[in-house]
Amino acid sequence: MADDLYRLTASEVAAKVQSGQVTIEEYARSLLSRIEARDPVVKAWAYLDPERVMAEARRLDQVPLEERGPLHGVAIGVKDVIFTKDMPTQFNSPLYTDNAPHVDAASIIILRQAGALLVGKTTTTEFAATTRGPATTNPHDPSRTPGGSSAGSGAAVADFQCAVALGTQTGGSMIRPGSFNGVYAFKPTWGAVSREGQKLYSLTFDTLGVFARGVADLELMAHVFALEDDDDDDDDDEAGVGPPAKTTTGFQVQGARFAVCKTMVWPHAGPGTVGALQRAVELLRAQGANVEEISFPESLADLPKWHATVLDAEGRAAFLPEYRAGKDKIAHLLIGHVENRGRTSRAEHLKALDSIAAARPVVDAMLSKYAAVLVPSVPDEAPEGIEWTGNAAFNVIWTALHTPVVNVPGFKGGRGMPVGVSLVAPRYRDRHLLKVSKKVGEIFEAEGGWKPSN
Amino acid sequence: MADDLYRLTASEVAAKVQSGQVTIEEYARSLLSRIEARDPVVKAWAYLDPERVMAEARRLDQVPLEERGPLHGVAIGVKDVIFTKDMPTQFNSPLYTDNAPHVDAASIIILRQAGALLVGKTTTTEFAATTRGPATTNPHDPSRTPGGSSAGSGAAVADFQCAVALGTQTGGSMIRPGSFNGVYAFKPTWGAVSREGQKLYSLTFDTLGVFARGVADLELMAHVFALEDDDDDDDDDEAGVGPPAKTTTGFQVQGARFAVCKTMVWPHAGPGTVGALQRAVELLRAQGANVEEISFPESLADLPKWHATVLDAEGRAAFLPEYRAGKDKIAHLLIGHVENRGRTSRAEHLKALDSIAAARPVVDAMLSKYAAVLVPSVPDEAPEGIEWTGNAAFNVIWTALHTPVVNVPGFKGGRGMPVGVSLVAPRYRDRHLLKVSKKVGEIFEAEGGWKPSN
Repeated sequence: MADDLYRLTASEVAAKVQSGQVTIEEYARSLLSRIEARDPVVKAWAYLDPERVMAEARRLDQVPLEERGPLHGVAIGVKDVIFTKDMPTQFNSPLYTDNAPHVDAASIIILRQAGALLVGKTTTTEFAATTRGPATTNPHDPSRTPGGSSAGSGAAVADFQCAVALGTQTGGSMIRPGSFNGVYAFKPTWGAVSREGQKLYSLTFDTLGVFARGVADLELMAHVFALEDDDDDDDDDEAGVGPPAKTTTGFQVQGARFAVCKTMVWPHAGPGTVGALQRAVELLRAQGANVEEISFPESLADLPKWHATVLDAEGRAAFLPEYRAGKDKIAHLLIGHVENRGRTSRAEHLKALDSIAAARPVVDAMLSKYAAVLVPSVPDEAPEGIEWTGNAAFNVIWTALHTPVVNVPGFKGGRGMPVGVSLVAPRYRDRHLLKVSKKVGEIFEAEGGWKPSN
Repeated sequence: MADDLYRLTASEVAAKVQSGQVTIEEYARSLLSRIEARDPVVKAWAYLDPERVMAEARRLDQVPLEERGPLHGVAIGVKDVIFTKDMPTQFNSPLYTDNAPHVDAASIIILRQAGALLVGKTTTTEFAATTRGPATTNPHDPSRTPGGSSAGSGAAVADFQCAVALGTQTGGSMIRPGSFNGVYAFKPTWGAVSREGQKLYSLTFDTLGVFARGVADLELMAHVFALEDDDDDDDDDEAGVGPPAKTTTGFQVQGARFAVCKTMVWPHAGPGTVGALQRAVELLRAQGANVEEISFPESLADLPKWHATVLDAEGRAAFLPEYRAGKDKIAHLLIGHVENRGRTSRAEHLKALDSIAAARPVVDAMLSKYAAVLVPSVPDEAPEGIEWTGNAAFNVIWTALHTPVVNVPGFKGGRGMPVGVSLVAPRYRDRHLLKVSKKVGEIFEAEGGWKPSN
């Protein structure tokens, strides 16, 4: 079934390559066929050179077994705001057309050392900062946006054009496309993975993340990026489980304690998200989990506003180079940041920054009582049109709080498009959150009501 | 006096070039002669191509007057952890020998747009992370260290080999070499200048800064980097001045309110610093300033320890790429970070991170009562030997707190080497701090007792 190799998950590819069942060349050829067939519609790639991919595949096939890393041969897409020494990095900006610094971002060095087959650069909104979509379409309905700013990464993974893709999130740029495309999206704890070599928007918020079609692949990536919780063993991973028991079976939904938090921006939720969250709670309860409803304390009601204030202020410094180099070639949003058109004072900026920082341990404590907390991923299914990548209202809260977040697919909206639900955990409980997401994902994918048609 | 052009400050060069008194080519030739004469001893440069410098100088001379920026022709050294598209960036690491990505850091784009003449790359400790000195010597005594990690930048500016230089500070990498070399060093508020395109050690602490031989040059650089306080006018800049008065003369030491804070690490102070701080207070009082002594609240006694914990934890993610690419080629310190040999738990990391964040507004409020607060820059004058770049105990506090800091030279230690005193102000009071530093610097330089011999 060499024709279907493109459908393999990262974990499956890694295993089949390692066991010699599949060559990377065969796998790459299958992927390139898929891309060739689908790219005219999905348009997920900002840069892709099939010859480079095949040459890389053949080179990787020559690497002796004992020198191979855990991602050997796994096809990975890279959002086009992350430096790659052998592919241009253009940020969807005319200022950087054909920009090709011969340097790898920290994440790319790590992926290459692990043996990844880097497929190409995936589309993004301008500097991963605006909500004006690239040409990319939603693989489940080309009249709809795949979300953004990690538009191409979300779409390429959903459309089986690569196994895994890197994205970034400053507002909702991972979780939103994760939900809109019906795939898993994992935003790790801020700072847990090096952001060196990425376009900077906000030091305080920018976070590298991963898209995949299953939690096993997210776990593989977490392993490669050396994400480790404190005491990463089974006992510890059962924090939040009802009766504490020494087992080696890992996390079980049965008897676990979850919460659902609609957040202070719940009025943004449309019927797709209202239904998905309700169904998610029902499914977990049906499996014997305890699900409580929790709310943010009133003192944190301004979290979304604080995020906006800090983003505006940090964008002021971040886009000064582009403003000076070519103000006429950057989005109005970015000019507004640099010129401080929002008239954010330094005092307001610091108040917002400090308030968010003070909120982090408070929210960690709130989250730590549960195996995970369910929160909305998006207002609803992907909106029509590709001009606008959608609303990040539900995401900015968790981006600001630096917590790990996983979008779990499985539900559907009124037009049959995917809708995800996010699981969140306290900072640096990334591996724990993935274990919980795996079990929860099995339930949501099986019974949530949405199935990918492609 | 074309032979002496190398001695000009940035502000002087900019003015003479703009008025046509001096060509950039003449200026560059003078600088290169100075460098040629002194480099065998000082060894401040990791990369310097005289032909490139002359070509750049001639190119800049051709730029029409009306297209010139505020730094047109000003010679700037660039610490070798900051990407420059026309010079290699090697981080003092064998992993990156001849590493030449064709890309400019954010700061470099801004400097080029302003017309700067980039001279070369200045030496650094490995990845600006260790305290093992490069070959650079202190221009005032070649048997002593120039400090680090911004070793070459501090030495080159002190030795008139460039007018201004960029450095970075994660612990004490700007202020320490500023003090050891007898020059001004300015660490702006964290986040006020984009760090994109620099080697990453700690997202929370890394800060780009500037060395210069006068505060007017720091103000010029602050202008180019668009550093602005809230209400950046004379009235506001007199915060901390005794009788509030509407004047247009700017900040005056007479009647101003200062404080001195010896900090919780005062036992590190040797006679050079004890004497310098005492003399600084006497000089300000003699000029009619009010100087109080203040202390950190007991609750912040662990600030230095929190800094060390966060640095260790963030270094764990930052150096994973180098660890994977060539563990045998990186310093033990960095291996220790990645392998978490200090056994810093995620919980300890977060506690330290959150405690520092909570301290920032507390300390801002403490500092805001004064025109500026005097604090030690270093334990003492530059130690003998160039193997060890010295102790950053006094600097890490302010790096953690994100406040702007200016090292003001003027004092001397027991062996006649320079000793500086730092002025600090609340976050985003950068321009205010520079105005205060200018007046204070005039006094310290005139009466502090140290004069550069070169």
